[in-house]
Parts: sequence; structure tokens; C-alpha cells
Amino acid sequence: MKFTYKLEKKEKHTEARLGSFIYNGVKYETPMFMPVGTQATVKTLSPEELKEVHAGIILANTYHLWLRPGEDVIAHAGGLHKFMNWDQPILTDSGGFQVFSLANPKDITEEGVHFKNQLNGDKLLLTPEKSIEIQNKLDSDIAMSFDECIGYPATYEYCEQSTKRTLRWAKRGKEAHNNPNQMLFGIVQGGNYEDLRRMCAEELSKMDFDGYSIGGTSVGEDKPTMYQMVGYATKYLPEDKIRYLMGVGDPIDLIENVIRGIDIFDCVAPTRLARHGHAYTKYGKINLKNAKYKEDFTPISDVCDCYACKHYTRSYIRHLIVAGETFGARLLSIHNIRYLTHLMEDIRESIRNDTLLEFRDEFIEYYYGEKHE
Amino acid sequence: MKFTYKLEKKEKHTEARLGSFIYNGVKYETPMFMPVGTQATVKTLSPEELKEVHAGIILANTYHLWLRPGEDVIAHAGGLHKFMNWDQPILTDSGGFQVFSLANPKDITEEGVHFKNQLNGDKLLLTPEKSIEIQNKLDSDIAMSFDECIGYPATYEYCEQSTKRTLRWAKRGKEAHNNPNQMLFGIVQGGNYEDLRRMCAEELSKMDFDGYSIGGTSVGEDKPTMYQMVGYATKYLPEDKIRYLMGVGDPIDLIENVIRGIDIFDCVAPTRLARHGHAYTKYGKINLKNAKYKEDFTPISDVCDCYACKHYTRSYIRHLIVAGETFGARLLSIHNIRYLTHLMEDIRESIRNDTLLEFRDEFIEYYYGEKHE
Repeated sequence: MKFTYKLEKKEKHTEARLGSFIYNGVKYETPMFMPVGTQATVKTLSPEELKEVHAGIILANTYHLWLRPGEDVIAHAGGLHKFMNWDQPILTDSGGFQVFSLANPKDITEEGVHFKNQLNGDKLLLTPEKSIEIQNKLDSDIAMSFDECIGYPATYEYCEQSTKRTLRWAKRGKEAHNNPNQMLFGIVQGGNYEDLRRMCAEELSKMDFDGYSIGGTSVGEDKPTMYQMVGYATKYLPEDKIRYLMGVGDPIDLIENVIRGIDIFDCVAPTRLARHGHAYTKYGKINLKNAKYKEDFTPISDVCDCYACKHYTRSYIRHLIVAGETFGARLLSIHNIRYLTHLMEDIRESIRNDTLLEFRDEFIEYYYGEKHE
Repeated sequence: MKFTYKLEKKEKHTEARLGSFIYNGVKYETPMFMPVGTQATVKTLSPEELKEVHAGIILANTYHLWLRPGEDVIAHAGGLHKFMNWDQPILTDSGGFQVFSLANPKDITEEGVHFKNQLNGDKLLLTPEKSIEIQNKLDSDIAMSFDECIGYPATYEYCEQSTKRTLRWAKRGKEAHNNPNQMLFGIVQGGNYEDLRRMCAEELSKMDFDGYSIGGTSVGEDKPTMYQMVGYATKYLPEDKIRYLMGVGDPIDLIENVIRGIDIFDCVAPTRLARHGHAYTKYGKINLKNAKYKEDFTPISDVCDCYACKHYTRSYIRHLIVAGETFGARLLSIHNIRYLTHLMEDIRESIRNDTLLEFRDEFIEYYYGEKHE
């Protein structure tokens, strides 16, 4: 393993945790938001731009890279870091979520998941061993166990049998794992049933993974239910290991789930919203395609230190988005990721000061409130 | 005017010229290739990236900016420089070429061109005065007279009446021009008829424009015909003014037309080719979508100093292009523009040494020859 998580401080009034790790001589702090580089690139951005917006770990998708360009191409390139020119940590998911959300039809068996390649129609089989083997070859720093991402809502019976299979898959993956430089995380499923989440968290803990992910909380449920599912899982996870909430990135969700003990998050939202012309601000999301920004010669946010806010106006970025120019999506991606990394910096500061609940209340007042720019 | 062209040296064996101008305290040299920023952005690139690949002047399109976001928005922003965050020179075209190539149907009258707005179907009229007025508002450093870009082939009769009208339009535009910071160029048309090109060049010269463009040479003719048309025009233009060949950017065409006395060029080719996965190399254009590059872990070119060649492999860029990731088009745009600015540096060096013809012959041997990487 190239790094180890260190728990530095627990917040007084919540389950929030401040942590850190050293990677290639550089210290990174958690809670942290991880931008998503689905196809070995964070859409529209260069590695240098990602560093400029304080990105730490980035995420790449096993499923996508397996299908294209293929894990062997990346292995022959010397691994994902070298392939994509990224020298900070990389986390790969297991492919489980993509099989769940993209592959149709699919057939889930004890062996793994049978489905069709979305690119060429070939029949494929993703198994726990195969997922680990691909991730080993990609040579990411953190790999995920293969799991079934359960949809919501789901019956207790389905959640129980699926979660037990996810546990058997986690065990098979751990046995297949064969990359000493790579951490391996187990994934807590269990739907919205506390006893199943608990069972899964405890069983995974016994297997002693390098960290723990929480899955199946961002697939259709409302926010209170999501927060509840997260609480059911973190409660039963060891304190000294990093906890990763998968696929969650709405600003309020970052705050609420840090409060429930989460350390790292990933989400495509900042880059996807950017491509549609949306920007995060202190006063909520704005849609730059709105005509009122046509002659707005102010920056997206006057409290943001990003490249887009330093050099460009809402009017110009609006023009780029409306005209379909990718430089617009790039400027908004820079801004949106910086917004989230900035939010995480504020969250960490609030944990340090034991004022996270006040921070949340003030955040809500501005982000959802009547106050205007 | 913010700068004046200075002719520094003529090559001994050809009509090639070395020139320079000072803009905002920085010296720029010609012959020069100008990247195209159609909609106030050079597709996929930031101003910083353009500077890194040694871009000098960039071009923006009057027609596109008139339709979207509208010249008034840009004027209210403080002009095109401020709007798009570009502090080097900007040249705007007249809109004539876009009306010629994009607007259908159109009706050309003495007053101007009537056509439909491609974005919303509105009826529009572009006149010499309107073109100049828009360019005045955009506040580019170099504006173009409104002209009719004659298709090829065209009858002598059509070319004659069209070219005479283009001259009348040039005069009307010059009278309407009202921006002391902006140079105004006349455009030499005349099809492939030496006497018409000559008449046009001489009449424009009498009107004493700040520089001269040559139009209608890149609309379907073969290379020898293009070179001939250019020679017909440069022969009759004053030596002390800059000459701009519009819309030409194929590497061999840059060399051949410098030989015929051209100083500046623009073309969408480097960025358009980039979006289709093509890259210039010393050994000709390569198409990275070709399967043979799948595991090619060398840079696009090992004699190129651009960001793409320093940090990325053909394999990775191929993956990005095939996967539809815009970072691939961005890397190839960086490389292709740098290839052309590098070529212009070599051309200028050859003019300095009076070895441009040898340079051309060697270029052809590698670019079109049997030699391989």
C-alpha cells in the first residue's frame, strides 16, 4: 500500500472525523471530495487544472476502462497513473455500479454478472475475481470489492440475499487480490435495513479490509433515507479505517454525511452540471443558460479563487455554453470542482473547531434561503 | 492603430518576406499562422495554452459573433479582448465568407447580402457598413472589408462584376470605418483571372488600406491554381503593407504562399483536424483513430515541444478521441497549432538564411515522402 489513513480528530458534537494520509511525500486531508475521471480523464480537465482546484484522489471507472481501451493497454502503458499522467492517488470502483446502471439486460448469478458490452454487443461476465484482476492491472491505489448495488426500494428478502452474496463476493475478491501497492475496500450494502447494513459492516470488518465503502445510497431514495442508510453503516465500521460514500456529491449531502462519519466522496455532478451550464454558488446552483446572465459581467462567484472566476464573466461563460464551446464546460468544471473542494476545506475547519453543526445551519441558510447575491 | 507592420527582409530567391510588429510592448514576427477562434474561443483551448504554443494574432468571426452573443454584448463587456480574456492581437473577418458558405438561400444585391439567420430563421441583411460597424464594436485590432467570396470555378463575367462590387463595398466600408485603434484591410478578389486580381489589388492600393487580404483562393480549387491566384495578387500589392491569405493552413500551402509573398494566414484546420483525431507530424498527417496506435506509447512527435508531446502518448490520446473525451481534442489542438507555429518559425529562419526553397524541398521529402518514423 502506498498510504495509510490516520484518524486525527473526532468532532465533539457529531460523528465527523478529521483524517490524513501521506502519498508521494504530500499530505492529504479528509473529509475529501474526489472528482470522477470515468474514462481515465476528468471530463474537459488536465491534471494540472485538477491540482489547481485542490483535487486529491480522483476516481476512475473499472467498467469503462475494461471495455475501452482495455486493462491490458493500460497495464502495458505502465498503469493508470502513467497512462493518464496523474501522480496523485487514484481510486477505482469495482464495475458493480455500472453493471447495475448501464448493462441491460443482465443476469446476476453466484458466479458474477452476465451482460452485454454496450459498445459492441459482446457477451461479458464480470466476477469478483475479474473485477479485482482488472483493478490490479490498472494499478490504482485503492480498489473496490465487486458488489451488487441494490436498487431502492427493495424488499427485505432481496436485500438480505443480495447483501450476503456481496459478502461472499468480497471474500472471493480479497482472495484474488494480488497487488501489494493497492488498498482493497469492502462495500457495505444492505438497503435501508439497519440489521442488514450492520451485518454487512461487521462481516466486512472481520475480513479486515483496508477501508470501507458504503454503496446503494444514491440510487433513488430521498435525502433523509440516504442519511439513515449511511448512519446504519458507519455505526458498525472500525474507527481507524477510511470510509467512502460512493456516488454522493450534492453539497448538502457532503455536509450531512460527514456529520455521519464519512471521510471521502465521489460524484460526477460537478462536471456533469458544468456541461449543462450549471454552477454552484454560495446562494445555490445557478443556470448560466438563463437569459438574465447575458450581460452579467461579474464572475460566477466573487468569493471563489478558481481560474474561471479570476478571468471570466458569467456573460462570457454563458456565451460559450450556449454556443456549444467546450471551453465553457471546462471553465464551469474548474469552478464546480473548486467549489466542492473549498466546501470540504470549510468542513474540515469546522471539525477542527467543533462547529460543524453551526456550519451546516449557516450553509443551508445561504444555499437554500431567501438571501440573494 | 495599435501596431504597424515593418518589412524587415526579403528573401533572395523568392517573394518571401520577413516582417515584424510591436503590440503591447511585445514583438511579433511574420510570416505567421493565426489560430481561429470562431466564437470568441479557439475551440477547446485557453488563452494561456494558445500563448504556450506561440500563437500571435488570433482570428474571430464577425458573422458568428454578430448572431451570437451579438456585438452589443461584446461592446458592453469592453470589447472582444476583455470578453474572451485575450491580450494579444485579434483580427476579425468581415462575415463575407460565412455568408458565402453558411447562409442559404442568400440574395446578393448592391446594398449587401440578404439571408436567413441560421440560428432562428430571422431575415438578415449584411452590408459593408454593417460589417464594419460590428467589427468596430467588437474592437478587434484588424478589421476586414466586406467582400463577396467568389466560388471556383466562376466565369470571367461573374468574377468581373463581383470584384467591381467588392471594390465599391470596400470603399463604402472604409468610409464607415470609425475606430482609430483598428486597422482596416481591403480584400483582393478576382477569381483566377490575373487582370481582375491586378485591377482589384491596384484599386485597393489606391484607397490606401492598412493591409491587404487575398480571398477566394481556398474554395475548391487545386493547389497550383491557388498558388497562381495568390501570385496574381501579391505582385500588385504595396511592399510596405502586410498581406493576409484567408482560410489557408495546409502546411505545404503555408510554405508555397510565403514563397509568393504572404505574411499571415488563418485556418480552422489544426483544431478541426484535432477533433477528428488527426495530428501533423514531420512525416505527414497521422490519424490516431487508426488501430495501430492502440499501444503506441510514444509521443505524437518526438521533435515537438508542446504540452501534449511532453506528457502524453499516442495510445492515451487515441483512447480519449475514440472515447469522445474532449481532452483528446484539446491535446491534439495544442499539438497541431504548435506544429504550424513551429513550421512558421522554421520558415522565418529559412528567409533569414535565404534557404526557403531548400527548406520547401526537404519539407516535401519528409511530409509526402517514403521516409517513415
